[in-house]
Formats: sequence, C-alpha cells, structure tokens
Amino acid sequence: MKATMLYGPRDVRFEERENPKIIQPTDAIIRISATCVCGSDLWPYRGISPIAQPTPMGHEYCGIVEEVGSAVKTVKPGQFVIGSFFASDNTCPHCQAGYQTSCQHKEFISTAQAPIMRVPLADGTLVATPGVPSEDYIPSLLAVSDVMGTGWFAAAAANVKPGKTVAVVGDGAVGLLGILSAKQMGAERIIAMSRHAARQKLAREFGATDIVTERGNEGVERIEELTKGIGVDSMLECVGTQESMMQAIRSTRPGGFVGYVGVPHGVELNGEELFFTHVHLHGGPAPVRRFLPKLIDLVLNGKINPGKVFDLTLPLAQVAEGYRAMDERRAIKTLLRP
Amino acid sequence: MKATMLYGPRDVRFEERENPKIIQPTDAIIRISATCVCGSDLWPYRGISPIAQPTPMGHEYCGIVEEVGSAVKTVKPGQFVIGSFFASDNTCPHCQAGYQTSCQHKEFISTAQAPIMRVPLADGTLVATPGVPSEDYIPSLLAVSDVMGTGWFAAAAANVKPGKTVAVVGDGAVGLLGILSAKQMGAERIIAMSRHAARQKLAREFGATDIVTERGNEGVERIEELTKGIGVDSMLECVGTQESMMQAIRSTRPGGFVGYVGVPHGVELNGEELFFTHVHLHGGPAPVRRFLPKLIDLVLNGKINPGKVFDLTLPLAQVAEGYRAMDERRAIKTLLRP
Repeated sequence: MKATMLYGPRDVRFEERENPKIIQPTDAIIRISATCVCGSDLWPYRGISPIAQPTPMGHEYCGIVEEVGSAVKTVKPGQFVIGSFFASDNTCPHCQAGYQTSCQHKEFISTAQAPIMRVPLADGTLVATPGVPSEDYIPSLLAVSDVMGTGWFAAAAANVKPGKTVAVVGDGAVGLLGILSAKQMGAERIIAMSRHAARQKLAREFGATDIVTERGNEGVERIEELTKGIGVDSMLECVGTQESMMQAIRSTRPGGFVGYVGVPHGVELNGEELFFTHVHLHGGPAPVRRFLPKLIDLVLNGKINPGKVFDLTLPLAQVAEGYRAMDERRAIKTLLRP
Repeated sequence: MKATMLYGPRDVRFEERENPKIIQPTDAIIRISATCVCGSDLWPYRGISPIAQPTPMGHEYCGIVEEVGSAVKTVKPGQFVIGSFFASDNTCPHCQAGYQTSCQHKEFISTAQAPIMRVPLADGTLVATPGVPSEDYIPSLLAVSDVMGTGWFAAAAANVKPGKTVAVVGDGAVGLLGILSAKQMGAERIIAMSRHAARQKLAREFGATDIVTERGNEGVERIEELTKGIGVDSMLECVGTQESMMQAIRSTRPGGFVGYVGVPHGVELNGEELFFTHVHLHGGPAPVRRFLPKLIDLVLNGKINPGKVFDLTLPLAQVAEGYRAMDERRAIKTLLRP
C-alpha cells in the first residue's frame, strides 16, 4: 500500500509501505474510510517539533474492521469503528477514571494517513457504530476521533454549564468544535476569538454569540469590557502558545475554569501570577475514548455536525497538498479519502 | 497602644503606635482577644519578600467589637467577631462566587498583631459568634481566621471526597489543618509528608494514616509505591516552593486534583509537563470568608479543634520571640495575647 510519511519540514511523501498486519493478539486491522490532517501535525510539519527520522503520520480515523487478533473479544470484522489518537486498554485505573490518554498501556497512533492501519488494544480503543453508517455521516464520525472529542474535552475541563459565559481562544478546528460543544452544554454566551472571516462564520453557525478579533493584552481588555470587568466563567484554550495561554488565564473570572487542550509549546506559567488569578486549570491530551459513545450518538441522531470543519476534501494520494492548505490557512481542516 | 512592626529581616519591634480609629463609615474597631504569627509572615521576616519600609504586621484575629462606622448594619459593639486576612464587601460578583479574597474592593489586613485594630468593610468581612465564647474556644476560633480556613480551602480545591486518597505536602500549621480538613471531608487515606516528630504526632492526631519523610523525587517515588503506581486522588500543596509544587503535581493521578495554598515563591510551571500530567490545578489566597460560618460552627460544636496547632502562647509584648520560635521551627505556630 501507499501511505503518508513526513521526512522533515514541509516534506510530506505518499510512498510505498508494507501492509500492516496483526502483531499482538489484541490488535485489529482496519480499512480506513476517511482520515485527516490534524492541527498538531503542523508542529512537526513546520519543524517546530523536530523529527529524528522519516515518520509515518496520522492519528484520526474511522473505517471497517478487516481482521482481529486472537484475544480481541468485542470488535468484529465488518464493523464500522472509530478510535482515539491514543490506543488504551480501557480497564486500567486511569482509563476507569476517564483518562484513557493516560492509560498505563497507552500507545500513540501514528499510521492513520493510509488506506489500512493496525490499531493496538482494539477492544479498549475502538467503538463500533450500530450498523455501517451512510456516506453522509463519515466526516462527522471522523471528526469525533480527535478534533470533536478534543473540543468537547476543552469545554468539559472548562466546566461549561447551562447559562454560563464562555470564551474560546483559537479558531482552528478544535476551537470551533469547542464552541459547538459549549453550545451543546448549554452556554448562554460564547465569545469566539477569531480574525478570519470564514472561521468567524462557522463559529457563529456553531453557536458563538460574540466575535473578538483582538489578541494578547488587547484581547484580554476586550473580554473584560464584554463581561463588565468580571471575566468569563469558562475559557477554552485551543492553541498552546505562551500568548494564548496567558490570554486565556487573564480573561477568566476568579474561581472560573480554564480548559486547555492546545499542546503547550514553550509555555511557562508563573506560579505567583496563577495563584492570584484564582482560576481552575485543567487540560491535557483529550481522553476522547471517554466521549466516543456519546459523541457518536449525537452525530447519528443529527444533533451535531462537526464534519463541517472539513472545508477541503482530497484523495489520500494528495495528502501533501492537504498539509500545505492547512499550513497556509487556506483550509481549516483537510479530509482525506483513500 | 503598642503594636508590632517589622523593620527588616529578623527585626520585629513592639512599639508605640497611634490608636486606630474609624476612617470609613463601613469600618469597625475591634479589641483583639488573640492574634498570631503566620507562616507567610516569615517570608518578609526572613528577607525573602523584602519590605520597603517599617511595616505593621498581623492578619489573623478575633475579638470584641468596640465601635462601628455609621454605615455598618449587621456588626454591633459587644459582639465577638472573626474575620479573614482580606477585608471584602461580600456582595460583588467575585464574593458572590465564593472568592472573597478576589473581592473587587478587597483590602489586605496587616495590623492585627496589636491590642486594637481597624477592620474595613466590617459587614462583609466579620462574622459574629452566637454569644461571647468561653476562653477555651479562643485558640480554635482564632485559627479559623486564616490557617484553618486555608487548610480547608486546600482540601476543597483538591476535591477531597469520602473514600479518597489524599496527600499533604507541608507540615506547617496550614498543612496540618489540611489533614484535619481532609479527615472532616471523609478522606479514607491521608498521607502526611513530614520529617519532624512533633508535627508527625499532630498529623496523626488530625487524621493522617501514613507518614512520608522523603522529599522531592524520592517523595514522589514513595507516594507512587504507597498508591501502587497510581498516584493520589487529591493533593494539598501547603508550601509554595518549586520543589513542593512539582512534588505535588507529580504525585497526583491523571485526572486528580492539586489544591495549592502555599504562596508561590519563584515557582515556574512548565506547560508541556503540566499538560501531560492531566491534573486539575486550583488554589490561591484562601477565600476564608466563604468558610467562616461553617468552620465557626464546627469549632463551637466541638467537631474540630484546630487551636491545637498553637504550641506556643506568649504575651503580645513578646511578639519578637514568637517570630524567632517559628523561624527556628521550635514552634509550629505562636498565639499572642494582648
């Protein structure tokens, strides 16, 4: 088969690789229905997180089970399944506590931008839909594999509740789906931080009530104005830079909640400043597995349509263009069809 | 009157000062029944937080109201009252949310190591007991003014619940009362980090089930062993150094809670490390006012006896010795009687 490899900054190749096969008895092999490029793939693509050697790419996926190992009990060939970007056993104490991305046996998935992939710990990682869904649902079901689950975790970590005032830093796919999540959770006011017309439009469609185009200290001042000097109840940080993190913390009311899901790059938090802000801070790699059953249900019942974040669809063979379009912000998120 | 002034490192003087009087119509004047030296007073005493000029000291107090300003409605002369170390109006949005130490009109109290003091925003700040309590209750009622309220907030911020496994970093008065708080909240296992015999004894009396004497990375390893590699559910950080903060974060299970109340001195948190720990982080200056009614009730009903942390009682005139004894760790906490 041909699959996606990153060789170095801006060097994505679609090249011949060996077909994956069962290695552990707990593995499954799935034929990918759709995969995509993640905002976090851009960190190594841009050379900000350097890679030591040519690296297979992709951690968002859904598809049909082809084969399972001898120890796999619940997942069966022919099922349509969705998994998270970390394989997890879903039985260890951390999984039982709902933090499957901290599973004691976790394995990062990084071979999903391909037509066929191996998923470790299949019983713990994959969730099957009731039947094979129609084509229309594929983009939204793919989205729950990471970007929707991550936006949902940001909102959950930020303690979004009915009637609350929420803000979202970051207008990438995760930030936009954080807005959708906050809306689903009953937020009354949702302030989107965005200066990009197409993303503002989608933000409004997903439930944003206010748009703030200012950033950094000016962004903080604007939110202060909008909230009459109080700050927001819940803040979703979906970027991961020092500026975005401080903007998030400084815009939150004392006793308010910051949910942060942007992988921090070079972020240092001053303990004393954090102390006096009185905010709650929670985040990390989203335990998407916890939310998969609920989010799949919301998609199949037509309650949410997170697939709208895919504004570019390409054949998998054109994966390099998929990266370029996102890097240049021509696309919010690229869906790839094998 | 004579009152306490700090002139510089280890230079505490008890000297003539003008008697305080009503300045704002919302003020009250109280005659102090008991006051004390706080662990946080040791930061400027040791020169770690330098002071620019001779500074009046003291922020823990209880006593009898002598006089109130014309706008004071609920507090009356003759009442026995307890207040927090921050005056607060108890009506602004931050107070209403339970974060009175972030009150929009907050004023830090710093004249309590004296026989008489002025308390701003008396109606919002002071809580009166049902009658004038007997002498026996004075130490415990004084303790709720800060150190008990702060230990309680640490446990609340760390989400202590019945059946949980808790650890406490710091065996000062706040850490010890964090143990007492965790016990009251139903924790099943409480691990105290202490290497000091008298404090270990009090820790056990307050409810500690395990004592860990190791610190830093060895402390983290010891807690890992004690919790079978999982980490604690709730961690109370009651010191405020880089080492204690990292020890707290690294000993907490993914999805667990760190409540931090030690004022951070030189603490920097690496965003990426924090992200992958999956902990909840919450803390700040304890909003003691939120807890005063409940804690006063627990004291007067004999449910808690936080006054046990006072292992040295001195006449106020000997305040300098009270600081020395705590600085040299001869005393956990010094109570002063005018």
